[in-house]
Amino acid sequence: MRFIIFGAGAMGSLFGGLLSARHDVLLVGREEHMKAIEENGLRIEGITNGIFYPKTKWDGERYDFVILTTKSYDTKKAVEEILKKFGKMPVLSLQNGLRNEEIIAEIMGKENVIGGVTSQGATFLKAGKIHHAGKGETIIGEMDGNISERVRKIAEAFNECGIETKVSKRIKEDIWRKAAVNASINTISSLLRCKNGFLVENENAMKMLRMVCGECISIARKEGFDIEDAMEKTVEVAKRTGKNISSMLQDLMRGGRTEVEEINGEFVRTAKKHGMEAKINEFLTLAIKGMESVRHLGWPYDHESRRGP
Amino acid sequence: MRFIIFGAGAMGSLFGGLLSARHDVLLVGREEHMKAIEENGLRIEGITNGIFYPKTKWDGERYDFVILTTKSYDTKKAVEEILKKFGKMPVLSLQNGLRNEEIIAEIMGKENVIGGVTSQGATFLKAGKIHHAGKGETIIGEMDGNISERVRKIAEAFNECGIETKVSKRIKEDIWRKAAVNASINTISSLLRCKNGFLVENENAMKMLRMVCGECISIARKEGFDIEDAMEKTVEVAKRTGKNISSMLQDLMRGGRTEVEEINGEFVRTAKKHGMEAKINEFLTLAIKGMESVRHLGWPYDHESRRGP
Repeated sequence: MRFIIFGAGAMGSLFGGLLSARHDVLLVGREEHMKAIEENGLRIEGITNGIFYPKTKWDGERYDFVILTTKSYDTKKAVEEILKKFGKMPVLSLQNGLRNEEIIAEIMGKENVIGGVTSQGATFLKAGKIHHAGKGETIIGEMDGNISERVRKIAEAFNECGIETKVSKRIKEDIWRKAAVNASINTISSLLRCKNGFLVENENAMKMLRMVCGECISIARKEGFDIEDAMEKTVEVAKRTGKNISSMLQDLMRGGRTEVEEINGEFVRTAKKHGMEAKINEFLTLAIKGMESVRHLGWPYDHESRRGP
Repeated sequence: MRFIIFGAGAMGSLFGGLLSARHDVLLVGREEHMKAIEENGLRIEGITNGIFYPKTKWDGERYDFVILTTKSYDTKKAVEEILKKFGKMPVLSLQNGLRNEEIIAEIMGKENVIGGVTSQGATFLKAGKIHHAGKGETIIGEMDGNISERVRKIAEAFNECGIETKVSKRIKEDIWRKAAVNASINTISSLLRCKNGFLVENENAMKMLRMVCGECISIARKEGFDIEDAMEKTVEVAKRTGKNISSMLQDLMRGGRTEVEEINGEFVRTAKKHGMEAKINEFLTLAIKGMESVRHLGWPYDHESRRGP
């Protein structure tokens, strides 16, 4: 099969690299990263170890699928670029956040959207080099719940390259569940500046997770999705990724933008649509956006500092 | 007049030092700090500059008042010590938090409690040396609202030593107002690790302040206190102390315990008593307690770190 990976950062490069062992893969990503891969191949370290050779230059031929792995705040721009460059074609989103599939549908048409979530762990090390931190299930599915030929084929392609993948009849629910887990782990680990493992070791952090996740579960329920098990899932993910730093905290540490608006912010907007309160998610969205703007992300202590109120 | 300053950290030493210019003052505080003052006097820098000579050893004589400036989580222990050492005597609390006066009354008797709040700014620099960061109003008053002879005398003594002080007929309300300001500025500056000034410069931080403070105002209203102006006061204090680091963030930076339970935690307990929700204060109490427990308060990044969920 022929895959375009659009937005080949850490996660996209992991999928692209692994898939390139048996399939035609074209990576689209930042210039420096692409150049390094073109010259020396893509180096993957960690639980996968090797050099992979996905393409980084388009030969003009037709590809079967786009796997979209950009940050969710870039979805619209990315899909418009895909449409312009490659024409109408099916897009599988493996992103965070709640609205990606909707945005893809608006641009590419409903029939060209495939939903997905992944628990693979990947970190960008430097241009041409990524770290495969942990394996985790990938779930894909048609938005209407059909088990189509194309999703079965994609799952098969993923599985034969070592990417454990299931096809789901309820991918929307899976996306909401994943978002609830992210809404909880990402924000609380960012506020506490801790590794994920601390969240399940500290009773205050556990109570915070329960407050966020509980709110997300209630909002999802109003929207018609049963994700009552999201808190168990949150605990399981925090344990499994205990030594990891959440993607949101990594974004903050880099001084970059986070996906809080596309994750917690979407829960808030959905709650408001239903006339519900979502105080915790609202507060967390503000807090993370506030943290994005604090100039010195470390301790602000300096010689001028003195007792406040 | 004769004052004992019990819990002479930064704030207590500031009051003790300034008062010692015209009154008999006995400081009770940490051994190292007392020893340095005994040997070289108390050095105050900043907007006050000088060396002051309060006593640090009790000569067995009777004092008129105790000014209590311990952390609010130490109030019970401190007042028990005062009772044991000096006998029953009037205690003026200049602490943070909502329950100090109640605790003092339980131990010393209702008639021996005088309420107070201060906006003076002081930082502990090292044993024998403190920094006077900013002047601010001090308000004292009888718990029953009477303008008694003793509070007028104390206010007079404070004022003649340069400590601007007013007597209030509604000291309980003043204490609740101050607690609402603290509940807002201390927690949000701690979460964002920022100086107080950032809180009024950043719109997300301002919205967070409004969420916390609004909740505190509603809770106070249920308890019978009108502190509708607490948000304006919060903005005013954050502006005035813009270059300062809040006391809670200072406590966290030292790796120490904060007063979050005695400030925000009390708002939560009061809300529950009235059958109200206090989600933001509840969440903040957990967050700050979580932050107290995170071992590495700086960024937790190390070579093991990798992408989380």
